[in-house]
Amino acid sequence: MQIPENSKIVLIGDSITDAGRDPSGESTPWGAPGFGNGYVALINACLQVWHPERRYRVINRGTSGHNVRDLAARWQTDVLDLKPDWLSIAIGVNDVWRQFDIPLRPENAVFPEEYESTYRSLLEKTRPHVKGLVLATPFFIEPNHSDPMRIRMDEYGAIVRKLANQYDAVLVDMQAAFDRLCEHTHPMAIAWDRIHPGHVGHLALARAWLEALGFTWR
Amino acid sequence: MQIPENSKIVLIGDSITDAGRDPSGESTPWGAPGFGNGYVALINACLQVWHPERRYRVINRGTSGHNVRDLAARWQTDVLDLKPDWLSIAIGVNDVWRQFDIPLRPENAVFPEEYESTYRSLLEKTRPHVKGLVLATPFFIEPNHSDPMRIRMDEYGAIVRKLANQYDAVLVDMQAAFDRLCEHTHPMAIAWDRIHPGHVGHLALARAWLEALGFTWR
Amino acid sequence: MQIPENSKIVLIGDSITDAGRDPSGESTPWGAPGFGNGYVALINACLQVWHPERRYRVINRGTSGHNVRDLAARWQTDVLDLKPDWLSIAIGVNDVWRQFDIPLRPENAVFPEEYESTYRSLLEKTRPHVKGLVLATPFFIEPNHSDPMRIRMDEYGAIVRKLANQYDAVLVDMQAAFDRLCEHTHPMAIAWDRIHPGHVGHLALARAWLEALGFTWR
Amino acid sequence: MQIPENSKIVLIGDSITDAGRDPSGESTPWGAPGFGNGYVALINACLQVWHPERRYRVINRGTSGHNVRDLAARWQTDVLDLKPDWLSIAIGVNDVWRQFDIPLRPENAVFPEEYESTYRSLLEKTRPHVKGLVLATPFFIEPNHSDPMRIRMDEYGAIVRKLANQYDAVLVDMQAAFDRLCEHTHPMAIAWDRIHPGHVGHLALARAWLEALGFTWR
Amino acid sequence: MQIPENSKIVLIGDSITDAGRDPSGESTPWGAPGFGNGYVALINACLQVWHPERRYRVINRGTSGHNVRDLAARWQTDVLDLKPDWLSIAIGVNDVWRQFDIPLRPENAVFPEEYESTYRSLLEKTRPHVKGLVLATPFFIEPNHSDPMRIRMDEYGAIVRKLANQYDAVLVDMQAAFDRLCEHTHPMAIAWDRIHPGHVGHLALARAWLEALGFTWR
Amino acid sequence: MQIPENSKIVLIGDSITDAGRDPSGESTPWGAPGFGNGYVALINACLQVWHPERRYRVINRGTSGHNVRDLAARWQTDVLDLKPDWLSIAIGVNDVWRQFDIPLRPENAVFPEEYESTYRSLLEKTRPHVKGLVLATPFFIEPNHSDPMRIRMDEYGAIVRKLANQYDAVLVDMQAAFDRLCEHTHPMAIAWDRIHPGHVGHLALARAWLEALGFTWR
Amino acid sequence: MQIPENSKIVLIGDSITDAGRDPSGESTPWGAPGFGNGYVALINACLQVWHPERRYRVINRGTSGHNVRDLAARWQTDVLDLKPDWLSIAIGVNDVWRQFDIPLRPENAVFPEEYESTYRSLLEKTRPHVKGLVLATPFFIEPNHSDPMRIRMDEYGAIVRKLANQYDAVLVDMQAAFDRLCEHTHPMAIAWDRIHPGHVGHLALARAWLEALGFTWR
Amino acid sequence: MQIPENSKIVLIGDSITDAGRDPSGESTPWGAPGFGNGYVALINACLQVWHPERRYRVINRGTSGHNVRDLAARWQTDVLDLKPDWLSIAIGVNDVWRQFDIPLRPENAVFPEEYESTYRSLLEKTRPHVKGLVLATPFFIEPNHSDPMRIRMDEYGAIVRKLANQYDAVLVDMQAAFDRLCEHTHPMAIAWDRIHPGHVGHLALARAWLEALGFTWR
Repeated sequence: MQIPENSKIVLIGDSITDAGRDPSGESTPWGAPGFGNGYVALINACLQVWHPERRYRVINRGTSGHNVRDLAARWQTDVLDLKPDWLSIAIGVNDVWRQFDIPLRPENAVFPEEYESTYRSLLEKTRPHVKGLVLATPFFIEPNHSDPMRIRMDEYGAIVRKLANQYDAVLVDMQAAFDRLCEHTHPMAIAWDRIHPGHVGHLALARAWLEALGFTWR
Repeated sequence: MQIPENSKIVLIGDSITDAGRDPSGESTPWGAPGFGNGYVALINACLQVWHPERRYRVINRGTSGHNVRDLAARWQTDVLDLKPDWLSIAIGVNDVWRQFDIPLRPENAVFPEEYESTYRSLLEKTRPHVKGLVLATPFFIEPNHSDPMRIRMDEYGAIVRKLANQYDAVLVDMQAAFDRLCEHTHPMAIAWDRIHPGHVGHLALARAWLEALGFTWR
Repeated sequence: MQIPENSKIVLIGDSITDAGRDPSGESTPWGAPGFGNGYVALINACLQVWHPERRYRVINRGTSGHNVRDLAARWQTDVLDLKPDWLSIAIGVNDVWRQFDIPLRPENAVFPEEYESTYRSLLEKTRPHVKGLVLATPFFIEPNHSDPMRIRMDEYGAIVRKLANQYDAVLVDMQAAFDRLCEHTHPMAIAWDRIHPGHVGHLALARAWLEALGFTWR
Repeated sequence: MQIPENSKIVLIGDSITDAGRDPSGESTPWGAPGFGNGYVALINACLQVWHPERRYRVINRGTSGHNVRDLAARWQTDVLDLKPDWLSIAIGVNDVWRQFDIPLRPENAVFPEEYESTYRSLLEKTRPHVKGLVLATPFFIEPNHSDPMRIRMDEYGAIVRKLANQYDAVLVDMQAAFDRLCEHTHPMAIAWDRIHPGHVGHLALARAWLEALGFTWR
Repeated sequence: MQIPENSKIVLIGDSITDAGRDPSGESTPWGAPGFGNGYVALINACLQVWHPERRYRVINRGTSGHNVRDLAARWQTDVLDLKPDWLSIAIGVNDVWRQFDIPLRPENAVFPEEYESTYRSLLEKTRPHVKGLVLATPFFIEPNHSDPMRIRMDEYGAIVRKLANQYDAVLVDMQAAFDRLCEHTHPMAIAWDRIHPGHVGHLALARAWLEALGFTWR
Repeated sequence: MQIPENSKIVLIGDSITDAGRDPSGESTPWGAPGFGNGYVALINACLQVWHPERRYRVINRGTSGHNVRDLAARWQTDVLDLKPDWLSIAIGVNDVWRQFDIPLRPENAVFPEEYESTYRSLLEKTRPHVKGLVLATPFFIEPNHSDPMRIRMDEYGAIVRKLANQYDAVLVDMQAAFDRLCEHTHPMAIAWDRIHPGHVGHLALARAWLEALGFTWR
Repeated sequence: MQIPENSKIVLIGDSITDAGRDPSGESTPWGAPGFGNGYVALINACLQVWHPERRYRVINRGTSGHNVRDLAARWQTDVLDLKPDWLSIAIGVNDVWRQFDIPLRPENAVFPEEYESTYRSLLEKTRPHVKGLVLATPFFIEPNHSDPMRIRMDEYGAIVRKLANQYDAVLVDMQAAFDRLCEHTHPMAIAWDRIHPGHVGHLALARAWLEALGFTWR
Repeated sequence: MQIPENSKIVLIGDSITDAGRDPSGESTPWGAPGFGNGYVALINACLQVWHPERRYRVINRGTSGHNVRDLAARWQTDVLDLKPDWLSIAIGVNDVWRQFDIPLRPENAVFPEEYESTYRSLLEKTRPHVKGLVLATPFFIEPNHSDPMRIRMDEYGAIVRKLANQYDAVLVDMQAAFDRLCEHTHPMAIAWDRIHPGHVGHLALARAWLEALGFTWR
C-alpha cells in the first residue's frame, strides 16, 4: 500500500463520492453517515479491517450533482483548509451528463476545454501541498462504445489520464472497472440510470481504487 | 471458495444479520435494501465483484431481536421453504444479552440447555436438505474475558463450535474476528453498545465468513 | 376516431399505464389523480378537449410493477367486471426487465412462452365481450438494437403484433414512438432508466395511441 | 408555428401558469417539476413531441396568487435577466378575484386603472428586447355573462386585447377557450372554484395558446 | 324554542353537517372536535350559552361525501340505535352535485325518483320513534336561478319541502338562508366552490335552523 | 349597535383572543384561519350574518402567552400602524397566571402596579386616534371567590374597569360572562385549565362583547 | 419495606398510572418507556437504587381514560394472567370526572354504587391469589373542599378506604398527598387541569406509595 | 441541606445533565421539558416534594455532546448572566470519550492538561460570585478498572476532586455512585453504551448529589 500510516486522505467528487453522506460531520462508529454508503465508506472499512494499526484517516468531500466548476468553488474550504496528506479526485460525470439529459440548457454542462483548464488549475495550486494524488476517470456504465454519451465520457477520461501523468498522480480507471463488470452483467443489474451503482458497483470502485494504490488483501 | 456456482445461499440470524434489511423483498440493483447494511450485503458484494460469473444468489433472513427460539418459530418459511443450497446461521447474541440487560425478566432470555437443544433440533431437520452449512459463533465486543457476560457468551460459542463439528459445518468464529480487531481498537470505536458494529465491524465479519469459506481475494 | 361516443374505455397495464394514479378512485375535475400523470391522463384530456360532446369515459387500471401474470390475477375485477366497451392493454416491460436487472431471480420474470400463452388466454375470454381492442407493444428506450434487452423486448413486441392481428385489435407501436423520438433526442433526455418517461415521453405515447385509433387534431 | 427554432420562451403569470411548479429549478426529464402540471408543461410537451428538432426551450415563471403588481416587483429577475426570445404573459385573475372574495380588503385587489398602467409599463420596457410577445386574457369559468365578477373579468380581458394590439403581440383568448368548453360542460366539471382547472382545462389552454401561435398538429 | 329540555338531538347529513368532525367520539369541553366546525357546533354553542339549564344533548352524525343512499346504509347505527328525541336531516347536495361535476359517472349520483323514495322510506321507519323532526333543504350558493345545477337543486329542495309537510317536520330552508346572504355578498366571498361555506355561512345555517325551531335570542 | 358601518375593528389580546389564528394573514372565505377559532371569529360571523350590508372589517391581533408588557412591545405595528376605527383590548390573564403556576419565576409575571401603568400608557397614546374603545376584563373560570388566583384576577378586573371609565371605553365584563355560565355548569365542562374555553365559552364571550356594544339579535 | 424480595408488583389504573407508557412492552434500561413517566417509574427507580439486591419486578398496567368498568374488562389479561405477587390499584378519577366535564353523557361516568360493586367484585376474585394488595384513593387537586367535584371525589376515596379495610390492603391516600402539597403550592403549579400532575406531583405520589409500604430512605 | 431557601441553583454539564431538556425554556408544571428527564429533574422534584416551602429554583444548562471547552464558550450567557446562588458543574465525559471512540480525530477530544486549565479558569472567574459550588466527577459505567478508558476517566475524576478541594466546593462522586450500583447490576442493565443511564441510573446520580449536599429524606 503506497499510502504511509497516519495519513489524512481526502476524497472529493460528485454524487458517486458523496453517496448520501451526511455533510454535517465525519462518520463515527455509532453511525453518523459522514462516509456515505459508497466506495469511500468501503475504502475506509477495508483500511481499518486490514490495517487497523496504520491509523488512516479518511474524509469524504463528495457533493451530489457537482461538476469541476462546482469543485473549484469549494476548493479552499473542502480541500486546502483540510491539509490532506493524500487527495483523491473523481469528477466529470455531471460535466458530461448534462450535455445529454438537458441539452437545451448548455449552461449546466462543462465542455472539454473548460473541464481540462479548470481541473488543471486546481491541480496546479494543490499538487505542491499534498504528498500523494489520486485521479479517477469519470465513467458511464454503457457497454455500447458508439453511444454518443459514452464517446464523450471517454474524452473526459482521456483528459484525466493525461493530467494524472503530468501531475504525478495515481490513476484509478473507474470506467475500466465497470467495463470489466459489464462483461458478465447487463448495465440494468448495476445501475438503472447507468450512473449511480448499488453496493456491488461501489465495491468494484473501491477495489479498483485500493488495488491502484497497491493495497494487498493479505 | 467452497461454495459452487449457481448456489442459493440463505443467511439467517438476529439484528447483526438483519442490519436494517427491508423484509418486504430481496435487494435489487436499484437499492431496495433487502440485503441490509451489514455483513450479508458485504458478502454478496464481494461475491458479485470478484466472481460475477459464478452467479451466487444471496438471501438475508436475519430479524432484529431474535434468539434461537424465535428462529425455530419461523424456520419452515424462512429456511426450509426457500430450499437453500447453503445455509448460514448466526444466532445467540440475544439469548445471552437478555440475561444481563433485563435480568428481572428471565422469560426473555434463552439459557444454555434450551439454546443447545433448540439449535440441535433445527440442524437435525435441516442438515440432510442442504449441501453446505455455516455456523457462526455469537460474540460480545468485550476484551475483558472475566466480564460475566463475556464468559457466558463464550459458553454459547463453545456450543456452536461443538454443533459445527457434529453437523459437518464450516465454523465462522465471529468472536475471534472482534478479538483481533480489539487488539488495536477500543470497543468504543467499534460499537457503542459492544454488540452492533458499524461498517468496519461488519466488514470484519464478512471477511471472517468469506475466508472461512475459502474465498481468495485474487 | 374509431371509438364511438358514449364508450367506456379501460386501459390496463404496468407502471407506464399506472403513472402514479390513486387506485382509490377515478379522476375527478378537482384533482383526485385516478388517471395518473401519464399517457392515460393525456388521452382523456385530448378526448375531452377535442370532443367534449362525445362523452368518452376513460378508466385507468395500470398497476406499477405488474407483468402479464399479475394482470391475469386481477383480470376479473379490473377488466371483466367493469364491462368496458373498448379495452387497451399495454404489458410486457416488466416481463422482460426482470430478466436483466435481477437475473439471479428468474421467478420474477415472465419468459416468452408463458407471456404469449397467458396473454392469449386473457384475449380469448375477453374479445367476445368488448366492442374494440387496443394492444400496445412493450418498449425499451434503447436505440442500440443489438443490446440484449432491446433484442428481447423486440421479441415480445412481435408477439403483441401477432396477437393484435389474430384478435382483430388496433396495434399501438409504443416502441416505434420512442424510436422516432430517439432520432433527435438521447435516451437520457427521455428517461434516466430508459423505461419510465417524463411528460414528453408520455405525450408521445398518447399521440401514438390516439393516431392509431384515427383521432384527428381538427 | 410562428416561433423560430432555438427560441427561449418564458411564460409568466399567476397560479394558472405556476400550476404547482417547483421554483427551485427548471424541469428535467427525470421529473423535477419545474414546468408545473398545467398548460406550460403541456405546451412544452407538444413542442418536444411534434418538433423535437426545433429545440425550443420553455421556462415557467408563474407564481401562485400573483397580480400584475406582484409581476412588476419581480420583472427584472424573472423576465429581463432571462433574456427571453419570446415572452408570454397571463395575468389578471387575482387582480379581479380579490375584489369579490375579500371585498373588505381592497388593498389586496388591483383595480382597472392600475392594472392597465402597470401592465403597460412592463410592456414598454420589455417589448424592444423580445422577438415575440404573447398576451393571454384572464378568465372566469362562469357561463353567466351577467355575473358581476364575469363582467369585471371581461373588462380586464378587453384591456389585454387593447394592449396586445398596441404592442404587436399574439393574443391568446383564454376566456374564449373556456366559454367553448362550457357549451358542453358545466363549470363544476372543469373547476370547482371556477378558476383552477384540472388536466382537461389546462389542455384547452395549451391548445388555445399553440393554435394562436400557428402550431399545426400535422 | 320548540325542543323541550333534556332532549337528545341528532343531526345527520353530508359534509355540511360533518364539517370536519372527528368521528371517533362526541365533542368535549376540552376540544375533541366531535361537533365539527360547522353549523352543528354553532347550534350546540347557542343552546348551551342561551339555555345552559335546559341540558340539550347535541350529536353530529354528518359524513362528508354522503348522499341519501349512503345515509340509508348507516341509518340503523347512526340514527335508530341512538334513540334521538329530535332528528335533523340535511341531505341532497351530493345527490345533485355528482350529476354535474362527474357527469360521465352516473352511478355516483342519486336522481330525483330514487332520492325521494329512499328519503321517504327513512322517514317512514323513523317518524314514529322520534318526538320531533327537522328537514333541511339542500342548497347551491348560486344566485343565478337559471343555472342547470341550481334548477336541479331546487327540485330536490321541493321534494324535501313536500316530505316535511307530509311527515310533520320543521322545515329549515338552507337555500333561502344563502339566497338572503347573496343579496349583499358575491358567492366567492361565501364559498369558493359554492357548496362548502366558511364560518360566516355556517352561522347563517345555524341561525336559520334555530329560528325555524323558535329559538329566541333573549 | 354602537359601531358605525365601514368601521375597521382591531381586537388585541392574549391566547383567548388569538385562539389559534394563523398570524401570516387575515381570514378569508376559503379558510385561512386569520380569525382563529374563538370569540373574534364568532363576533365577525355574527356581524356578517346579521349585518352584511354594514361591511365591518374585523382584524385579530391576539398572541398566545402575551401579557400587557408584550402588548406594549408590539403596539406600534399591531395597533397604531393599522389605524383602527375601533380598538378592543383583552389582556391580563397571563399577567396574573404566571404568579401562580410558576411562582419561582417572578420575571414572567406582571404585577398590578406595572400592569396598570403600562396599560394606561397604551391608552394615553391611542385614545385620541380611535373612534371607539372596548376594554375587556381578564377572567379566571373559578367560582370559588376566595381562591387566591381568583382574588388576584378580580384586582386586575377592577383596574380595567377603572381605566374603561377614565378613557371613555365600553367595558366588556368577561369574568361576569363566565360567572353566569358557572351557575349551571361546573368549570370542568367549560375549560379543563379554567382559562382556555371551548366553543361554548367563546360564544359566551362573543355574546358579552356584542351585547355590550349594543348589538341586537333582531 | 413490606414487600419481600423477588416480588412481581403489578400497578394498574388510569392515566395517572399509565403516564404515557408504551403498552407494547415493559421498560428496559435502554429506554423503551414501558414504565411511563409517572409515579410507577419513580417507584421502580427508588426500589432499584435503594435495594438493587432485592430484585423487585415492577409492571405498569395503567391505561389512560379508564374507569373501574374498563378495568374489569381487561382484568383477566392485565392482572390475573400476570400472576402478580403484589397488586396496586389506583382507579376512580375518570369515574368521577366524567360526571362534571361531560354531564350530558352519563353513560361515560361510573356512579358510586356501580363503582363500589365493580371494584368489590374485582377484589373478590383477586385477593386470594395475591400476597399483598395496595389500594390508592382517587384524587382531585382542588383545595376547595366545598367544590362539588371534590365532594364527589372524596366519596369515592371513602369507598376505597372501606374496601382497603375489608380486603386487608395497604391504603395509599393519594388525595392526602396532594392536600399536603397544596398547603404551600397553588394547584396551578401542580397540574393545569387539577388532575394530571407533572414530575413533582408524581414524585409526591411515589413517596406516598413507598412510605405507605414501609419503605425507608436509608 | 446545605443550600439555603430561595436559592437559585444552576446545573451545567453535558448530555447527562441535559437529558433531553428543551433549551427553549425552563420547565413548567404543564410539562415544557426544560428540566430534561434526568438527574436534574429528579433533584428538582425531590426539593419541591420534601421542601416546598423553601422555594428552590433549579435551572438546567446541560448541553449534549459538550466538553469543558464548549462550556467555556457559553459560560458568560449560561452561567454568569444567570447570577446563580449555587452552581453545579458536571463535565468531562466527552473530553475523555472522544479519545476512545474516534481516536483518529484528536481535535474532538480535550486532553488532561487543557481540561484542568480550562476548568480552573472557569472556577477562577466564577467562585467569587456564587455562594456555593458543586463539582461532579465524570464517570464511565465500566467495572473493569484496568480498561484504558476507565483509567483515563479516573484521571479526570482526580482533577475534579483536586479542584473541588482548592475551590471550596462540594464534591459529588458520580463515578462512585455507579460503582456502587454495579456491585449488584451488570452495566448492560444500566446503560447500553456505559455512559447514558436510564431512569434508575439518573436517580442514583440525583441521590448522590442530594446526599452530598446534606439532604435528608426525613
